[in-house]
Amino acid sequence: MMYSMKKIVLDCLGGDNGLPAMVSGAVTALKQNPELQLVMVGDAEQIKPQVVEFGDRVEIVDTKVNIAMDEHPTTAIRTKTDSSLVLGLEQLKTRNDCGAFVSAGSTGAVLTGGFMKIGRIPGVSRPALCPCMPTLIDGQEFMLLDAGANMDCSAEQLVQFAVMANEYKKALGMEKPRVALLNVGAEETKGNEVVKTAHAMLNKLRDAGMINFVGNIEPDHVFQGDVDIVVADGFWGNVLLKSSEGMVKFIFKSLKQIISSSFSAKIGALFLGGKLKKFKAEKMDKTNATIFLGLKKSVVKMHGNADARKVTSALNYAMTVVDLDLHQRIEPALAQIETVLGENA
Amino acid sequence: MMYSMKKIVLDCLGGDNGLPAMVSGAVTALKQNPELQLVMVGDAEQIKPQVVEFGDRVEIVDTKVNIAMDEHPTTAIRTKTDSSLVLGLEQLKTRNDCGAFVSAGSTGAVLTGGFMKIGRIPGVSRPALCPCMPTLIDGQEFMLLDAGANMDCSAEQLVQFAVMANEYKKALGMEKPRVALLNVGAEETKGNEVVKTAHAMLNKLRDAGMINFVGNIEPDHVFQGDVDIVVADGFWGNVLLKSSEGMVKFIFKSLKQIISSSFSAKIGALFLGGKLKKFKAEKMDKTNATIFLGLKKSVVKMHGNADARKVTSALNYAMTVVDLDLHQRIEPALAQIETVLGENA
Repeated sequence: MMYSMKKIVLDCLGGDNGLPAMVSGAVTALKQNPELQLVMVGDAEQIKPQVVEFGDRVEIVDTKVNIAMDEHPTTAIRTKTDSSLVLGLEQLKTRNDCGAFVSAGSTGAVLTGGFMKIGRIPGVSRPALCPCMPTLIDGQEFMLLDAGANMDCSAEQLVQFAVMANEYKKALGMEKPRVALLNVGAEETKGNEVVKTAHAMLNKLRDAGMINFVGNIEPDHVFQGDVDIVVADGFWGNVLLKSSEGMVKFIFKSLKQIISSSFSAKIGALFLGGKLKKFKAEKMDKTNATIFLGLKKSVVKMHGNADARKVTSALNYAMTVVDLDLHQRIEPALAQIETVLGENA
Repeated sequence: MMYSMKKIVLDCLGGDNGLPAMVSGAVTALKQNPELQLVMVGDAEQIKPQVVEFGDRVEIVDTKVNIAMDEHPTTAIRTKTDSSLVLGLEQLKTRNDCGAFVSAGSTGAVLTGGFMKIGRIPGVSRPALCPCMPTLIDGQEFMLLDAGANMDCSAEQLVQFAVMANEYKKALGMEKPRVALLNVGAEETKGNEVVKTAHAMLNKLRDAGMINFVGNIEPDHVFQGDVDIVVADGFWGNVLLKSSEGMVKFIFKSLKQIISSSFSAKIGALFLGGKLKKFKAEKMDKTNATIFLGLKKSVVKMHGNADARKVTSALNYAMTVVDLDLHQRIEPALAQIETVLGENA
């Protein structure tokens, strides 16, 4: 990965845990990464004393105005022009030395704000959320998109997701990302109408050498590490994301019940405990942060309930997407889709 | 639960594990449940010696013909009239003393066979798969439907699923099943077009006192035990089902890796081991078998890879759905939907 000198803008007011979690997570990230530079947007009086030690690696943009989790996104972005979210996005938009914006604010507000303030790369129909999810193979993840930003996607939009994700992974240094289409069966004839149409279009892009499309993938195979990108409508993608999260909670809560129910299980847990925690922290926090893929600059949305540890992890993630110049890659790639599908239609 | 004297028909040839698994699972079930009576369809020469001890509790219908997992469903049902699947379904259809049919054959063949041979209850647009899934509350499950039989469902079809499941749960003795709609957000305004329309229709049925509709449920909340029925299009339902299964496999495989990686973890696992296995067997095998809800008689589909233990569990499940007389309940309930929605439209 190339090292970028660009700054990351952090919304210090958004999210359920507010400023303390944001600042504490940022301090840890600043200590861990000597090259990290931040523009922190929030209450300067509270932030300043905690970041004094980092000198000019940290800038502060002062505001006490927050967009609450339940505010109407469009209205909030339009009217609360002095909110941390809007001020932060404006830093990203107007400053060449800023390469990413990170917020735990409400999904609706962050997406709407990114859409309105940063804007789409020309040709992009709908930007998509694309979290990384864990696989059984250590160090290997898959990217799921769209994970919930767009409902009722057309086959054309699914194809755009595939191509955008492909360019993104290539920008991160992966040569031939394996692109799969989320479906309820492996065979081409399976699925609903949108997915069948998208499958045929992705086959054409593969034949034209544009992407390494490996076919359908069923939701119970995504965690095996066979693919790098899983394409889905935002509704199905969100179901995949959230039902996996729900199952994780279910199993770990059940394990707790089991452990507290017997003495020998408690002893077992003592020996296993640290390993389990490490597993949860390393593999299960992957989905915490994601860019909104298709915007002109990197807008990173993290979980609304992000605590300090997750803020640090989101900032580490943002360091990998700061200044990726996706604009230069995605615009021509999307144009190429039309050429290929037009020619072969 | 009322005790039924009706017999269960078992397809002994379908499934990945074939006759040995079916017969072995059946023998255990016969030993566990003295009231269980079976009609076993398969190679009599192989089955007979193993069930002799059960006397006239077991009938055998002799055939060596199986429908393989990869055969085209409609063609296979039409042409292989002497297959265990078709012969078994005909037993169910023609005999008043048979109340359920159980098979591990390919989903396509079992559904098509059930549809063609047993037929839908009048008024049913599409029968649905409705497996039970575990929750954090012991002894409490939720039913997911449709779990994968129908793609591109309309809002009207989702509403039918809700009403059929409601009648099914009531037939099993539950007074006011809590019915929820699978969605990506809790608010009414969330989701895709189909789900928003279905939400409004389900509200009307609730207002008319027909069902206890509790609103939307997000996929990460389904395992908490707050609802009894989760309604979904077969595509989303299948994504929920399979991504949960995938996550279970992912976590348990990861736990194995963790355990084998260190000595102390191995010791921990020794103490915990039995409890974990019990948890997996009791909570995680729930989704193994499901009826195809909306047919005139109970057709039970179990996992294609069912082993003897799962066959026993599927037969125990079949004993709860044999002779439920769903026909008498579902037909008038579906007619009532039209009355309510027509009146309030």
